[in-house]
Amino acid sequence: MIPFSLGEWLLADMQQSVSKAAPGALRRYRSVYEGIRKAILSRRMSAGIRLPSSRALAEELGVSRNTVVAAFDQLLAEGYVTAATGSGTYVSDIGRGENIRPKPVRLHRGPALSARGRRIVAAPGGNTHEIQPFVPGMDDFSVFPSKIWQRLQNKYWRESPPELLDYAAAGGYQPLRRTIANYLSISRSVRVAAEQVLITAGTQQSLHLCAQLLASPGELAWVEDPGYWAARKVFEACDLTLRPIAVDAEGIHPAAADLATSPRLIYVTPSHHYPTSAVMSLPRRQGLLDLAAGKGAWILEDDYDSEFRYSGRPLSSLQGLDSHDCVIYLGTFSKILYPGIKLGYLVVPADLAESFKTSLYDTQRPGQVMLQAALADFIEQGHFATHVRKVRQVYGERRESLVRVLQSILGRHAKLSKEASGMHLVIELPDAASDLHIAAEAAKQGLVVRALSSYYLGQPQRRGLVVGYAYVPTERIQHFGSLLGNIVKKALR
Amino acid sequence: MIPFSLGEWLLADMQQSVSKAAPGALRRYRSVYEGIRKAILSRRMSAGIRLPSSRALAEELGVSRNTVVAAFDQLLAEGYVTAATGSGTYVSDIGRGENIRPKPVRLHRGPALSARGRRIVAAPGGNTHEIQPFVPGMDDFSVFPSKIWQRLQNKYWRESPPELLDYAAAGGYQPLRRTIANYLSISRSVRVAAEQVLITAGTQQSLHLCAQLLASPGELAWVEDPGYWAARKVFEACDLTLRPIAVDAEGIHPAAADLATSPRLIYVTPSHHYPTSAVMSLPRRQGLLDLAAGKGAWILEDDYDSEFRYSGRPLSSLQGLDSHDCVIYLGTFSKILYPGIKLGYLVVPADLAESFKTSLYDTQRPGQVMLQAALADFIEQGHFATHVRKVRQVYGERRESLVRVLQSILGRHAKLSKEASGMHLVIELPDAASDLHIAAEAAKQGLVVRALSSYYLGQPQRRGLVVGYAYVPTERIQHFGSLLGNIVKKALR
Repeated sequence: MIPFSLGEWLLADMQQSVSKAAPGALRRYRSVYEGIRKAILSRRMSAGIRLPSSRALAEELGVSRNTVVAAFDQLLAEGYVTAATGSGTYVSDIGRGENIRPKPVRLHRGPALSARGRRIVAAPGGNTHEIQPFVPGMDDFSVFPSKIWQRLQNKYWRESPPELLDYAAAGGYQPLRRTIANYLSISRSVRVAAEQVLITAGTQQSLHLCAQLLASPGELAWVEDPGYWAARKVFEACDLTLRPIAVDAEGIHPAAADLATSPRLIYVTPSHHYPTSAVMSLPRRQGLLDLAAGKGAWILEDDYDSEFRYSGRPLSSLQGLDSHDCVIYLGTFSKILYPGIKLGYLVVPADLAESFKTSLYDTQRPGQVMLQAALADFIEQGHFATHVRKVRQVYGERRESLVRVLQSILGRHAKLSKEASGMHLVIELPDAASDLHIAAEAAKQGLVVRALSSYYLGQPQRRGLVVGYAYVPTERIQHFGSLLGNIVKKALR
Repeated sequence: MIPFSLGEWLLADMQQSVSKAAPGALRRYRSVYEGIRKAILSRRMSAGIRLPSSRALAEELGVSRNTVVAAFDQLLAEGYVTAATGSGTYVSDIGRGENIRPKPVRLHRGPALSARGRRIVAAPGGNTHEIQPFVPGMDDFSVFPSKIWQRLQNKYWRESPPELLDYAAAGGYQPLRRTIANYLSISRSVRVAAEQVLITAGTQQSLHLCAQLLASPGELAWVEDPGYWAARKVFEACDLTLRPIAVDAEGIHPAAADLATSPRLIYVTPSHHYPTSAVMSLPRRQGLLDLAAGKGAWILEDDYDSEFRYSGRPLSSLQGLDSHDCVIYLGTFSKILYPGIKLGYLVVPADLAESFKTSLYDTQRPGQVMLQAALADFIEQGHFATHVRKVRQVYGERRESLVRVLQSILGRHAKLSKEASGMHLVIELPDAASDLHIAAEAAKQGLVVRALSSYYLGQPQRRGLVVGYAYVPTERIQHFGSLLGNIVKKALR
C-alpha cells in the first residue's frame, strides 16, 4: 500500500505546478501526471507500490476520471508504472532513485565549453543593439521597397508549390542562380555560369562551407589586418589558424615573413576593404592571384558591398582576372536589401561545383526557396536595379553630408577615408589618440562608432573611428555628425 | 602609337562578346571596356602605348562618344590606363603580361579539397529528388495551412518594422522564444525558461553550434548506429571523431568497449529513434544521463518528430529528467510545418545561454525575424495545435493503410516496426536479404525507400527498408504500398 496520501500530495503539488499556463483540462492532466512522476522519481513511492484506483483518486482530487486515466496511461507508456489486468497499477522499478533536481548540479569535470568554444566566445564581435546611429555595416531598411517585396512573395504563397516549400536542393532555386550569374557577369566581370552559383543562407554559411571543404583544422588562413571580425569568427569555429596580413592603401600587403608561410585560404575584400575602404590595386591583384596559384591557396573574395559606389563604376572582381581558377567569389543580399533576408551566394570553379552542392545540402540542408523565388523576380523585373540606384543616391547624400560636417568641425586634425563607396567611412586619427576611448565617449551619447584598432588581430597599426552612415536618416546626419565631430575634436585636444 | 587598329580589334571582339545579355547602351560600354582591357592584359597593347582619342574611337566603332569616355574612365579607375591632361590616354605598366585565361589552369599542387572536405563529400546523404513516394523524413506540405501563414506574414510585412528586417540578435525573436519555452514545458516536460531558448536556422545550424562550442577537433562524439546521417555530416564537418554505438529496442546501448571511451558529445533521438523507431526506455534514459554526467559529456537530444504520435501522449524529454544539466535539447519546425522554413531551436542550460547566444550571433548572424514573428503568432493563436492534430490524423491514416497493405502482401515474411509514431516505418528483413538491392529495385519503379543498412556507420547489424509514408497522398497509399510490398515479396522469394 501507498505510505502517504497520494491525493493530498498531488493537491499540494498542483498549487505550485509549473503547468499553470495550460488550459484547464490539460493543466489538470499534467498536474496529476507530473505529481505522480515526481513522487516515483523522488522515491516517495518506491517500486512495487500499488496506486489508488483511478476512480478513487479522481474523486479525491475533484477531477474527472478520464483525466486520471490519461495520466496513468502516460505513466504506463513511459514505464513509470506497470499494470496487471484486473489487479491495478504498480510503481515500476526505475533503477536507482533520484531527486527531482532541486538545483541542477553540473558534474562535468572539465570546463563546459571546449577549447574551440572558448576561443569563439572570447571576444564577442556583434553589437547587441544594432539599430543606433553610425553602427558600421547596417543598411537602411526603411528604403527597402517592402510593398513590392510583399507582392512578389504573395504571388508564390498563393500557389504554395511543393518545390518552393521543400529544402533547397542542388545549389538553390535554379532561376535565381541563373539571374545571379547574369548579374555578376555583366556588373562585376565575374566569369560564371549558373552551374557555378550556390545560394546560401548568407556569407557566414558561405564561409563555413569554404572553410570546411577547402581547409582542414590547423591549416592556415590569411586574413586582412585590420579586417572583418565575423569572417575570422567562422575560421576560428572551423579551427583554422589565422595569420593577420597587413593592409595598406592598395589592399592586402604580405610581408617577407608572411610569404614564407603556406596559407590554405586567403580572405580578402578587394573591392572595398573592410573597414579601411582601400581598393586593391591592379598590380596587387595580379600579385595575389599568382601568389595563391603558386602556393596552392584558395582566395575567398568577399564582395560584400560592391553595389555601393557613388562615383564611377565598380571595379571588376578579382575572380574575373583569375586565370588559375583559384578564386571563390562571395556575395550577399543582406547589405543591399535587408539584413534578415539571409540570402547570399558563392561562385565556385566549375570542377568544384558538384562537391560544394553536395556538401551544402548535406551539412546545411538549405531552405527558404520561397524567398529565393521572390528574389529572382525582384531582380528580373528590374526592382533590384532601381533599388540599387536609389540606395546609392541616398547613401551618397548621407556620406557627403557627413563628410561636410565632420570636415568643418575637425579640419586638418583628422583625415577622412576618401573612397567614394560603401556604407561607412573612417575618421583617421593620430597614432597617439585612443580610438577605443573616443568610441566609448561616443557610445555614452548613443553613437555606436567602432575603434579602428578593434579590427586588428595583431598589433594595431593605425587609429581611427569606423562610422557607418547608411542607416542614419538624411535629415539627422547633420545633427549626429556634429555631435560626433565635437566628441572627436574634444578628445584630440 | 598603337601597332594595330584598336577599332577593328574591338569590332571583332564585340561580335563574340560575353555581354550580349545586357541592354544596348550597357552592352556597348562593356564591349569597349572589356575589349581594351583584354588587349592590355594580353599585351596586345603594352605599357606606354597611347590610345586613340575617344572621339576617333567612337566614330570608328559607331558608338556614342559618351560610351567610349565611360569605358576610358573605368579603365582609368582600375589602373589599366593613365591620363595626362591635354596629352591623351596611355596604357599603364600593369606588371607582367597575362593571357585572358583561354582555359583556366589549376596550379594547385595538392588536391582541391581538404582532407576534411573529402570526408564530407565521400558519401552524399541527401536525395537529389526529394519529392517522391516513400522518401523518409518528408512531411506533407500540402496539408500546411499556407493561407493562414500568408496572412500572418502579411500582417508584419505591411508594417515592416526595422527590428523584424534586421539580423536576429540575442537568441532570436523574444515572443517566439517565450512561446517555445511554454510549449516545450507543457508538451515535452522540458525544464526551460525563455532565456535558455535559441532560435536557429534549423537543426543543422543547431548542431554546428553545439559541436563548435562544446567539442574541439578530434574529440569523440557518440552517434547512434544506425542513425541520422545528416547529424554525422555536421560532426564530420566540425572534425569530431565519430564512434558508432549500437541501438536496440530500448534505444542506444553502449557496449563495454564503448564505455571505456570518453565522448564529449552523445547524439541521441530518444523519443523516436531515427530510423528504427525505438523509444528509449526509462532505465536506459537514466543510465545515459548518469553516464554523461560521470564522463563530462554533453547529450544532444534531437526531438525531431515528437509531435507525430498517433496513440498515447508523447514521452517526456530526456532533458526533463536530467538533474546534472548536461542535456541540450534540439527541435525543428521543418518536420511539422514545411522543410524550407528552416527554423529550429536549442534549449541550453541556463549558464551556457550567454555563450551560445554570442556565438550564434557572431558565427552565423541569424535572421528571418519576419518568419519568427509569424511563427510566434501561428503558435499563440492555436493554428499550430490545430495543424499538429490534423497532421497526426492524416499521417496516422496513411500509416494504418500502409501497414494493412504491406501485411496482407508480406504476411510473416517481414516484420513492420511497431511504434505508432513518426513519419516512417521500417520493414524488417531477414539477415540474408540485401536491403540495398531491394531499395534499388524499388527506385526503378519510382519508390524512394532507403536500405536500413545504409544508416550504419559500422557493420550493419540489421536489414530493412525505411519507408516514409507522410508525404504519400492517402488515396495513393494503397497503390504504392502494394507496389512496394510486391517488390519486397519477390525479392525475398
